[in-house]
Amino acid sequence: MQTFFTPGPAQLYPTFEKHLQNFVSGQLGSISHRSQQYRDLHRFTVEQVRILLNVPETHAILFLGSASEIWERILFSCVELESFHLVNGSFSEKFYDYAHGLNKYAHKLEKPMGEGFTAAEVTVPEYAELICTTHNETSSGVQMNVAEIHKLKQKNPDKLIAVDIVSSAPYPDLDFKLIDTAFFSIQKAFGLPAGLGVWIVNEKCLKKAESIRQQYSIGAHNNLPTLWKNSLNNETPATPNVMAIYLLGKIAEDFNQIGVKTLRKETEQKAQLLYKFIEKHKGFSPFVKEKAHRSQTVIVANTELPSADVIKAVKEKGMVIGTGYGQFKSSQLRIANFPATSVEQVQELIKVLETV
Amino acid sequence: MQTFFTPGPAQLYPTFEKHLQNFVSGQLGSISHRSQQYRDLHRFTVEQVRILLNVPETHAILFLGSASEIWERILFSCVELESFHLVNGSFSEKFYDYAHGLNKYAHKLEKPMGEGFTAAEVTVPEYAELICTTHNETSSGVQMNVAEIHKLKQKNPDKLIAVDIVSSAPYPDLDFKLIDTAFFSIQKAFGLPAGLGVWIVNEKCLKKAESIRQQYSIGAHNNLPTLWKNSLNNETPATPNVMAIYLLGKIAEDFNQIGVKTLRKETEQKAQLLYKFIEKHKGFSPFVKEKAHRSQTVIVANTELPSADVIKAVKEKGMVIGTGYGQFKSSQLRIANFPATSVEQVQELIKVLETV
Repeated sequence: MQTFFTPGPAQLYPTFEKHLQNFVSGQLGSISHRSQQYRDLHRFTVEQVRILLNVPETHAILFLGSASEIWERILFSCVELESFHLVNGSFSEKFYDYAHGLNKYAHKLEKPMGEGFTAAEVTVPEYAELICTTHNETSSGVQMNVAEIHKLKQKNPDKLIAVDIVSSAPYPDLDFKLIDTAFFSIQKAFGLPAGLGVWIVNEKCLKKAESIRQQYSIGAHNNLPTLWKNSLNNETPATPNVMAIYLLGKIAEDFNQIGVKTLRKETEQKAQLLYKFIEKHKGFSPFVKEKAHRSQTVIVANTELPSADVIKAVKEKGMVIGTGYGQFKSSQLRIANFPATSVEQVQELIKVLETV
Repeated sequence: MQTFFTPGPAQLYPTFEKHLQNFVSGQLGSISHRSQQYRDLHRFTVEQVRILLNVPETHAILFLGSASEIWERILFSCVELESFHLVNGSFSEKFYDYAHGLNKYAHKLEKPMGEGFTAAEVTVPEYAELICTTHNETSSGVQMNVAEIHKLKQKNPDKLIAVDIVSSAPYPDLDFKLIDTAFFSIQKAFGLPAGLGVWIVNEKCLKKAESIRQQYSIGAHNNLPTLWKNSLNNETPATPNVMAIYLLGKIAEDFNQIGVKTLRKETEQKAQLLYKFIEKHKGFSPFVKEKAHRSQTVIVANTELPSADVIKAVKEKGMVIGTGYGQFKSSQLRIANFPATSVEQVQELIKVLETV
């Protein structure tokens, strides 16, 4: 068996197999998505995610096919004409591109890969209706501090703000009194197979969608008012990925039993081990120079040796790490730091990297 | 363990657990969706579905989140201004409603639930660009014969035609020289947990999408040109439901080993047993009067007893059948007839229904 330190799909959480077995033996793959049994399952997952991420009742927790689908649904729902995007890597860029795909006018503030944003340096264009931020840019390992995201909203209280927490949730401690919408997928830090996007979204976004709909399309499939209405009954508009919703509920429950504070502390502890190593060890260096902008969940290292050689050497020891993204494919490594890999496994990885 | 005769989610196919176990032990939930290992898995599934449904190379086979998502993507891709829908139940109605949701002008020819269409009675409006048909209307148990769908296209060669085969594939033997696009989901006749929609679509639809894009949005997420381009490399634009794609490939391979002709014959044989029973047995009668329009995969029966009583009695014997849909919830039963349930299991169900 290999240990995956790849940034998604990633290592599966240790309890995954047990929960999957219970799903199968309970024949939950066959139950109707309009049954009370399903509604109870759905409600359980919503409750566990709500506790884990401290989401107030002002926000719905909705289930879609993927985080990418949620990019589109956020833009449909929250942007009549103009959006604004902080872009510093491939995924924040894709969110921006989606706005064009829906014929919205998209503004951006762009920085090179490896650099991050603070609230002070951001001026949101006057007519932008939505500020799109990426808490953790998976392609470059840059994180925008939660405090800076909160400040950005406080500076722009009349704009809606969206936070991509795809490859960091449940690490960021977002204050949902300030955050209108956020979203993640389950194949990253939740340690589950891909196939589900989770959309946290408040009533302001719902009202905005209802107002936009008077004049423009807000989408037909999984549009926000329909998702919202169904969620009040613990249902989804179409047949959902029941297996993924069940598994997410169980993993979130496991996380809650550990406690999100402990999980966050462990994440920081493991990240510190990895950054310390790549800072000091010859042949490696951190890609993100500014310490405050370094991701705690996706650590990106420059490597003097071709990344393929390092990856191969590590693989021989039963561990899988990721290449750099795009233009950095061969000169960087990406190492995921999710709850599924323990401190001991990270120490083991570092030991192996030391010998490369 | 219960046997599910519900029309989706449905009984899981007998080999499902074995394939799932192989997915888990092979750690396929952690592999990168940009790796050769993934591309091989993806290609295998496409090949098996292509063989099973006799899909020529002119058509791509694409993976999305659900069949409902595909309704939207077909309308985005194939309709600049006007669509035309044959509506005779809740699911064909939803396809029609989606067109409104995208601000298209949607025409419909409507019949009451329980009635079906022939090509001769359909006149497609002059400016409609796409004809939307439903091979199997899951809500009412009405089937449109494949020969009639083919004739409809032959009568209207300049229109695109879409066929919803959600709750019937692989039963209908569509001629893809005539059919521009068709789609299904895996929680029906493929006997898998929900979470994947499969879109079969030809180059004419691609060309149309590229032309529409000059002036209108064709969607940002999973838009056809992006899906198509990725599929040439056996990839998807975003992280897909790898588990479901893997399982579909394995079930399609199992189906191919049995042979699609045998599967279709068995489906007809089981349907005949069920229709014969509900025609003759006091207290039951077929909802669909016209024999030629009766679904082979979702059998709908009127019941004199309240449906809840029948369902309860059957459940005590370890079998689950569905209620009627919408207004017919308490006066009808819906019995799925998919490959996951054998002739013997259908005979067993009939025995139990005889005693109710």
